[in-house]
Amino acid sequence: MSPDPGRAFTVEPWVVREPNLDLAALGQAESVFALSNGHIGLRGNLDEGEPHDTPGTYLNSFYEKRPLPYAEGGYGYPESGQTIINVTNGKLIRLLVEDEPLDLRYGRVHRHERVLDLQAGTLTREVEWESPAGRVVRLRTERLVSLTQRAIAAIRYEVEVLAGPIDPGSALLVVQSELVANEALPARDDDDPRVEAAMTDPLVAEQHRHGETSATLVHQTRASGLRVAAAMDHEVHGPDGLQISSEATPDIARTTIISRLEPGRRLTVVKYLAYGWSSRRSLSAVHDQVRAALAAARYTGWSGLVDEQRAYLDDFWLTADIEIDGDAELQQAVRVAIFHVLQAGARAERRAIGAKGLTGPGYDGHTFWDTETFCLQLLSHVAPEAAADALRWRQSILPLAKERAEQLGLKGAAFPWRTIRGHECSGYWPAGTAAFHINADIADAVRRHVAATGDIEFEKEVGLELLVETARLWRSLGHHDSAGEFRIDGVTGPDEYTAIVDNNVYTNLMAQLNLRVAADTAARHSRAAAKLGVDAEEMASWRDAATSMRIPYDESLGVHPQSEGFTDHQVWDFENTKPDMYPLLLNVPYFDLYRKQVSKQADLVLAMQLRPDAFTPDQVERNFAYYEAITVRDSSLSACTQAVMAARCGHLDLAFDYLAESALVDLNDLAGNSDHGVHIASMAGTWIAVVQGFGGMQCDSTGLRFAPRLPPALSRISFGLRWQGRQLRIEVTPDGTQYQLVSGPPMRLTHHGEALALAEDPVLRVNPDPQRVDPVEQPFGRAPRARHPGG
Amino acid sequence: MSPDPGRAFTVEPWVVREPNLDLAALGQAESVFALSNGHIGLRGNLDEGEPHDTPGTYLNSFYEKRPLPYAEGGYGYPESGQTIINVTNGKLIRLLVEDEPLDLRYGRVHRHERVLDLQAGTLTREVEWESPAGRVVRLRTERLVSLTQRAIAAIRYEVEVLAGPIDPGSALLVVQSELVANEALPARDDDDPRVEAAMTDPLVAEQHRHGETSATLVHQTRASGLRVAAAMDHEVHGPDGLQISSEATPDIARTTIISRLEPGRRLTVVKYLAYGWSSRRSLSAVHDQVRAALAAARYTGWSGLVDEQRAYLDDFWLTADIEIDGDAELQQAVRVAIFHVLQAGARAERRAIGAKGLTGPGYDGHTFWDTETFCLQLLSHVAPEAAADALRWRQSILPLAKERAEQLGLKGAAFPWRTIRGHECSGYWPAGTAAFHINADIADAVRRHVAATGDIEFEKEVGLELLVETARLWRSLGHHDSAGEFRIDGVTGPDEYTAIVDNNVYTNLMAQLNLRVAADTAARHSRAAAKLGVDAEEMASWRDAATSMRIPYDESLGVHPQSEGFTDHQVWDFENTKPDMYPLLLNVPYFDLYRKQVSKQADLVLAMQLRPDAFTPDQVERNFAYYEAITVRDSSLSACTQAVMAARCGHLDLAFDYLAESALVDLNDLAGNSDHGVHIASMAGTWIAVVQGFGGMQCDSTGLRFAPRLPPALSRISFGLRWQGRQLRIEVTPDGTQYQLVSGPPMRLTHHGEALALAEDPVLRVNPDPQRVDPVEQPFGRAPRARHPGG
Repeated sequence: MSPDPGRAFTVEPWVVREPNLDLAALGQAESVFALSNGHIGLRGNLDEGEPHDTPGTYLNSFYEKRPLPYAEGGYGYPESGQTIINVTNGKLIRLLVEDEPLDLRYGRVHRHERVLDLQAGTLTREVEWESPAGRVVRLRTERLVSLTQRAIAAIRYEVEVLAGPIDPGSALLVVQSELVANEALPARDDDDPRVEAAMTDPLVAEQHRHGETSATLVHQTRASGLRVAAAMDHEVHGPDGLQISSEATPDIARTTIISRLEPGRRLTVVKYLAYGWSSRRSLSAVHDQVRAALAAARYTGWSGLVDEQRAYLDDFWLTADIEIDGDAELQQAVRVAIFHVLQAGARAERRAIGAKGLTGPGYDGHTFWDTETFCLQLLSHVAPEAAADALRWRQSILPLAKERAEQLGLKGAAFPWRTIRGHECSGYWPAGTAAFHINADIADAVRRHVAATGDIEFEKEVGLELLVETARLWRSLGHHDSAGEFRIDGVTGPDEYTAIVDNNVYTNLMAQLNLRVAADTAARHSRAAAKLGVDAEEMASWRDAATSMRIPYDESLGVHPQSEGFTDHQVWDFENTKPDMYPLLLNVPYFDLYRKQVSKQADLVLAMQLRPDAFTPDQVERNFAYYEAITVRDSSLSACTQAVMAARCGHLDLAFDYLAESALVDLNDLAGNSDHGVHIASMAGTWIAVVQGFGGMQCDSTGLRFAPRLPPALSRISFGLRWQGRQLRIEVTPDGTQYQLVSGPPMRLTHHGEALALAEDPVLRVNPDPQRVDPVEQPFGRAPRARHPGG
Repeated sequence: MSPDPGRAFTVEPWVVREPNLDLAALGQAESVFALSNGHIGLRGNLDEGEPHDTPGTYLNSFYEKRPLPYAEGGYGYPESGQTIINVTNGKLIRLLVEDEPLDLRYGRVHRHERVLDLQAGTLTREVEWESPAGRVVRLRTERLVSLTQRAIAAIRYEVEVLAGPIDPGSALLVVQSELVANEALPARDDDDPRVEAAMTDPLVAEQHRHGETSATLVHQTRASGLRVAAAMDHEVHGPDGLQISSEATPDIARTTIISRLEPGRRLTVVKYLAYGWSSRRSLSAVHDQVRAALAAARYTGWSGLVDEQRAYLDDFWLTADIEIDGDAELQQAVRVAIFHVLQAGARAERRAIGAKGLTGPGYDGHTFWDTETFCLQLLSHVAPEAAADALRWRQSILPLAKERAEQLGLKGAAFPWRTIRGHECSGYWPAGTAAFHINADIADAVRRHVAATGDIEFEKEVGLELLVETARLWRSLGHHDSAGEFRIDGVTGPDEYTAIVDNNVYTNLMAQLNLRVAADTAARHSRAAAKLGVDAEEMASWRDAATSMRIPYDESLGVHPQSEGFTDHQVWDFENTKPDMYPLLLNVPYFDLYRKQVSKQADLVLAMQLRPDAFTPDQVERNFAYYEAITVRDSSLSACTQAVMAARCGHLDLAFDYLAESALVDLNDLAGNSDHGVHIASMAGTWIAVVQGFGGMQCDSTGLRFAPRLPPALSRISFGLRWQGRQLRIEVTPDGTQYQLVSGPPMRLTHHGEALALAEDPVLRVNPDPQRVDPVEQPFGRAPRARHPGG
């Protein structure tokens, strides 16, 4: 049960177990052990608060403004940014043992184990600690952020006095359960632009109240004017004579429980926590809201919350689970990944899903294209309501996106590259404003969601408007050249090591689809489209631009240049780039990255994943090999895409290596920055790599297609999907692929191009023999870790 | 003698006269009336200090550091910038008339005239002012910054009591002559990125001393650690009984002169000012230095300084003067322009020549490519020692430029885009770091300077190293593509409305010349080159890169695209761009400017001016017409280049209009920002427009060529040149062109291709008839003001 060297966690199918506390890896564990329902996020901080890497309690979309400074300003540069802030910390429970505070840096730790249970949705901890004075206590705590009661988190805290080196006798214990606002945060002094901005004392106290076992703190942010209320209440069980009292000051509320405990006896505290915030509601409304949520949670009780949580997850895993036979570490990692994506989106409910979910302060808590291009691929198929809500959030910020488009001299909507509440927060326009592809990414998420769910009402009420306004953007952003081709100049594609280019193939292909789908959807909902001002001429102009879309192609190399002229650029000197130069963005200037052939992440390769119709098989093969050789994966948004395309091209071992890199990014801290929060999109990419890579799944409005290929290292993969009201499970073994309709009406699908009718009975089909492929190469030193060195 | 409506100044051949004080145009007048010798700069502030637009006393290269902030940082971004600061103000002389301070905002101004005399090099002022109490005084002041004594400025201040509305009798006058450090500066709150950063109290007092009639203040900057000493001394003449005393505090030194003056009697004060600064010398060394300079100035005396000044300028004008018959306003403007360029560079002596000279705080006092590409074209021909010194300054910052190249992963030297002391201070890399052409601009200034002066010693000691290190930069910045062409990708050319492009024609042509000239020069000085590590292989690699240099050409349009793909971009919608949208950079985002065909300034057209050998006459004609239609001249560095090329293409009226725009930029405040300082490069461009445009002058190591063309509006142009130790004067009239060797040995030159031998006797040749040309068009609303609407 002890982890491999270099790993913090043991390998087990359904739990993440940290058998010992490693203070050096505290930040990573805080992120991996973060609990969230998409509305509340609690980092896996120790109950007693310290030691910590980064204390973190987050509420989705609760942010503070900060000025965005420029050495040289420019028109249209956003003046202020949004930073997620650490709100009132309610997970703090301190323990004094005979006047000595439990602090793992002092005394002796006999045992320290934490377990994240992916089926229970809880984080448990067991500690045996000997105080410097020699008293030994055992602590058992369990924590959850409720997936069923959105405003609620709860902690069960149990302490027991053990026999220790000195005569135990009874011990006087003091438990202090707190709400603390404006916690001191560690200073961040490195220059990594991916690190968040620090905020000091962002909360201004508005109200503090307490009862006998409960308390409430209400605060407001200084600049963004948001109001947050945090409330706690307690149930305490212990020996007679225990005393409970509470107090509150503007920034701290405290319930103190004092008990003299004989060895073997236990003191149990259940702490209910409720959070609420609003930009508009009054102090008393927000206050009452959290008190009501708290009352409902107490009514449900600890075991009720635990039961609800498990029932919710049982239902979720029924479809979402992926089984992998033949690699226990990957089995675990895939489940952790799916779990964290669920946590990020489950109850976001028309708020953004951030790049780190609510697991840490990285990227200032911002949402990027990650949500639509990576997370929603998964959520539309396993938690479609969460996916729909994420797109409804995009619809809700359309007024801001239209304003931004106007400011940029464009029509339609220009969604922000990075934001919390919908305002553009990017302070570097070549990699922000210019990355217009995010608009096509949103449109494509709409298209895929409608295909996956068949939800015509959603298409009409939500999807149509998003498609229309993004199509308008593209139509105004591009222009026809004298040869009649429709060009999109001066934009930035997914690869952040190339910027401000003409005719980025990814962007143009995604814009083309955006324009086409917008026209088709408007035609299907012509009355709703007319209300948005769409007429036949406008639809025709979209179709025309799509038809004339320029897709550059390098005839001499037989590959698509990522963008106009890309393949004429100098290839990066990989041989003379030392390993410690990566990630390159921290060690070489953008100017040099931009002008050379080096890709931070899949760009043209992602285009091939998302627009398979736009490439011939030969092109796919040549393009894949070409871009493999120049892609350094300095972004965690790359391995999963390379996994999918490697699998489609028949490089099954390579695909498997990429899948592992994608899946293990946080469990093994591969990017070295898991302490800032987990990589939600890479986690979603893990699902994509399995389902679209090895499952070969592709889908659109015409149906669902599979082309399963099992990598040599595995003996079985099983995954589930929702499809237009059905539940499916697909099992891939060396013998073939079995398709099973778990629920829902009969349907058709294809297996390696063969049409199948699927009803009650499972259908089994053999998989074709793997094709022979020429090996591909990665840049010097940048091949993924070979998972089966002999393979 | 009163100026045209909308003009602040009268039109006179050798002076700039401001017949009345216009408080609204105070800032413009402060810049135009600024006096400088290239080392000290005094803005044309009123003697009494207030009212003012911007008080300004500058020392070349005396700056303070300021942090450069970034919303999102990046590798290689400069962390701190340099800002020229307003040093100790020694030009302050206040007057109290019977206890009432002379302040033009109060009382009545009967007369206020200021005159900048371009032959005397002085600013004189005559004021008749009636105090609120009815006392009338006449003030006559004269100010100079010595072109012969570099550390010295001086002021002659004369005051007389006049008969006024009340019985005059005698009046008690108090003259306070001051040195003031850390003057309060007006707040700048607009968002224009071209405006300087404000600095509050940049100077820390180190020492203050005073004698009976003199005082010295020594200060240090906080961050840059520079030390400045300012000293003053006075000679006073007046009626008996006048009292003189001096005092000093850390930031203010004051000499007070009290005198009771009968009407008609005068009090005369001569104030000598000395400035010195150093980054290394001790307090006492800097202090003693200014006291010594002051002693020398007193020894020379006021009239001695005035005489020296005139003698210096007489000698200068002998070569530098341009005579224009037929347009009195232009005659004046051209002389003002030449005068200000001289002031900026005359005694800079191995310090930078800033974009505003020392006339204002605009652009933070930074030096750009303006110096080499514009100012030195003039200075190498009329003040060659100043040009040599400017290039010696570049050589002196080579260690920093080499360090910067290394940081950017390049070889050789990467000169800063903007700087004061040599460190890169650009906070926006697409228009800073990426504008590598500055390196070729410096190299070309070396080439031209050596051609103009024939100074082989300079070539060997200064030029060679600059050529070698810039050639090395280009060789490492570019690469050969698979077709064997040498490409320079991802850089920014002169046009700031297009950035980060491949194969900018201007950049590639200038780099090509840089590489060639470096190889040729290294071959001529092979031993010196060997000391720099240059061997035959390296020289061959430069020649090879130059020979293979890619110059994109658009066959279908028959024009050169400014950079790769430029002519495929959408043409800016000029018809729908309202006049108040200009300058575009303040009203539209860079992203939109960069991706469309709109040029802020001459780019390809400048390439044609500087590399006439690289274009056929047909290409020149087509290119000129093409870029005329998309160049909006939002930069003052454009009209002069367009003037030259319009003249060469036979558009003589248009060339004349551009010449006028270039010449009048500050006298008529055409850019609306003359208050921040005058546009030195545009002023130099005025000379270039006359000499290279209408004079048709071209020169290189093979000789001097002329192709004069007189615009219809003028009856005569005369200009002078130094050429390899000679002085020449060229006079162009409708009858032809007369070439005269004023001094120096016989020589050869060409007139419209015809070779001429020139010795003692003038040579006259007829000019060919003007060719017929098709008219060209400018963007809607952006044509230059037609100078002769009927013409």
